[in-house]
Amino acid sequence: MIYFDNAATSWPKPEAVYKEVGKVLRNCGNPGRGGHKLSLESGRVIFEARQEICSMFNIKNFLRVVFTSNTTEALNIALKGILKEGDHVITSSMEHNSMIRPLMALKDKGVEVTLVQGDIEGKIDPEDIKKSIKKNTKMIAITHASNVTGTIMPVEEIGNIAREMNLIFLVDAAQTAGVLPIDVEKYNIDLLAFAGHKGLYGPQGTGGLYVREGLEVFPLKEGGTGSKSESIYQPDLMPDKLESGTPNTPGIAGLKEGVRFIKSVGIDAVYRHEKKLTQMLIDGLKEIKGIKIYGPHKIEDRVGVVSITLEDRDVGEISYILDRNFDIATRAGLHCAAVAHSTIGTIKSGTLRFGIGYFNTEDEVQKVIKAMEMISQNTL
Amino acid sequence: MIYFDNAATSWPKPEAVYKEVGKVLRNCGNPGRGGHKLSLESGRVIFEARQEICSMFNIKNFLRVVFTSNTTEALNIALKGILKEGDHVITSSMEHNSMIRPLMALKDKGVEVTLVQGDIEGKIDPEDIKKSIKKNTKMIAITHASNVTGTIMPVEEIGNIAREMNLIFLVDAAQTAGVLPIDVEKYNIDLLAFAGHKGLYGPQGTGGLYVREGLEVFPLKEGGTGSKSESIYQPDLMPDKLESGTPNTPGIAGLKEGVRFIKSVGIDAVYRHEKKLTQMLIDGLKEIKGIKIYGPHKIEDRVGVVSITLEDRDVGEISYILDRNFDIATRAGLHCAAVAHSTIGTIKSGTLRFGIGYFNTEDEVQKVIKAMEMISQNTL
Repeated sequence: MIYFDNAATSWPKPEAVYKEVGKVLRNCGNPGRGGHKLSLESGRVIFEARQEICSMFNIKNFLRVVFTSNTTEALNIALKGILKEGDHVITSSMEHNSMIRPLMALKDKGVEVTLVQGDIEGKIDPEDIKKSIKKNTKMIAITHASNVTGTIMPVEEIGNIAREMNLIFLVDAAQTAGVLPIDVEKYNIDLLAFAGHKGLYGPQGTGGLYVREGLEVFPLKEGGTGSKSESIYQPDLMPDKLESGTPNTPGIAGLKEGVRFIKSVGIDAVYRHEKKLTQMLIDGLKEIKGIKIYGPHKIEDRVGVVSITLEDRDVGEISYILDRNFDIATRAGLHCAAVAHSTIGTIKSGTLRFGIGYFNTEDEVQKVIKAMEMISQNTL
Repeated sequence: MIYFDNAATSWPKPEAVYKEVGKVLRNCGNPGRGGHKLSLESGRVIFEARQEICSMFNIKNFLRVVFTSNTTEALNIALKGILKEGDHVITSSMEHNSMIRPLMALKDKGVEVTLVQGDIEGKIDPEDIKKSIKKNTKMIAITHASNVTGTIMPVEEIGNIAREMNLIFLVDAAQTAGVLPIDVEKYNIDLLAFAGHKGLYGPQGTGGLYVREGLEVFPLKEGGTGSKSESIYQPDLMPDKLESGTPNTPGIAGLKEGVRFIKSVGIDAVYRHEKKLTQMLIDGLKEIKGIKIYGPHKIEDRVGVVSITLEDRDVGEISYILDRNFDIATRAGLHCAAVAHSTIGTIKSGTLRFGIGYFNTEDEVQKVIKAMEMISQNTL
């Protein structure tokens, strides 16, 4: 199979991830909840995973890294744990539903939401964000890169605005963690939501949230934490406060190995490889009559996510043909991001999306281009 | 290792669980979010897991089964998705912090909470529940069996009361799913929260919630669902409404095999085996001077959870000696259940807990008794 759905979930995973999940699954106690060997060993695995995440994002205090089941959960915790009735939050028209839908739920509870409009390439102008700041603005919440167009957002500039205006800065790194360097200090990021199963090459069921020291986040879920068990109230200490219930220990163990893999390859090498393939794919697709490519013109402005349409043909059908006739996996539709499609004008058609990952090859890209040529010529 | 911490998480898992997690992890697309083979295959795995859960609990409609990351998440969804300011909920003094702590958070928001007091064996009298019902009572929320004393609660009688009084009935089956037969129809259960990684022998990071048809539960998390992507609002259809973000596909696949294992053994055989070992353990420990055993006197009134103290000795130290000198894994402390310990008088000392599972043997129980004899005689 030729897999180009890495923006949804990466495949394959590094061999070390498979091995570690299997090993930990077979030797897994309840971490932080017992004094015996299995339990302590599980606690150690999670501790190491937290440290790996810290070194990936330049996080100083590992106690501020919370593991979640996915990016969606991390975003829900970040948004609902902070925003209250009367608060104002600025986001963009390029967000995933995992940002927009919780914000719409908060809107129903009296939180004011401003969507800064992206341009036709999906780009957000930091000046537009600055102009949207009001007296009651509490947070800027923005994706690092669009899952529809791949557009990289100017997080450093937006982070500077947030710091200058004393606003909380939340970044959704679902599409960038493991691909672009992320430095929470340099970018002034207060809350970083990330996926474990995409660019960090961990298993599905993993993700996380970084919370800057000093920032109070109200928990979304209370429960057993293995700490302060004598109290009927949720403990205030991190990360326990935001991590109730038995964690996904084998999954987190796999994520640890995924991060180690990225570190061993080097994040710059990952990015260079994906950029090269993305350029090659775009160059090839551009030559095919009828194909429209969305997102930034300049390769430096995007990650390895390429959305296209082919005249007025059904993108679902194209994706189906690619799978059935060429064994090429892609994704067609709206990619859980309604507002982004409204922004680029594809809310009715959706797009066919190629999500490029580290394990893709030049040969695979050539095969995709060839297949798209044939499909465009209706020779199937 | 002799593992007696199954009440925290079961170990080992059936071989089929390890194999299935490995297999699915290696061939895992994003379920419900793409039309290619990997994605469809992942969707099928999750569909089958839902069906297995249905057949385990006599659930008629598989769309009413929601997968969560653990029981804690399921309980949080059930409680917070239904209870509103001014509502009254009846629970017990034998609950885990995963029930009590979200209820305390709701109390802060104006939900009235009544804790019906258990007796010294941890038993709840349904009559006491009945007497606590008020005009604004909306829900009865109760554990099926205590994780501290193993006490089985009279869920069928309580279910009858709930139905008769038109109240929503939530059952926490963390300690009973896979051990005791649970029939949501027979017991009039409206909401069933269950763990995947305990008696159902799935991996950590799995659990779920059954929601009776017609019962509206407000989501705890909104986000991408792979459905109605054109909408910026959370879709109303189940299970998507309560399942935002990429699921733990390999974990859920493992859970499916765990449930199949329990079904192949037969839940009655599982219960009989655990009951026999529990009886044997209690009989042996009873003979040791200084040991106090908590929970029901009658073996029929408890699952395989046995809490003890040994005179005024530190239970953490005993657990440590068992691990170090005998390679026996137990858990000492409060087991994330403060109110239960207050009920049975062990809030200061905590207890040493043996959690019996299907893979335990008579020989292992004898070794535990022998070890406890030696520890009680201070011969170490």
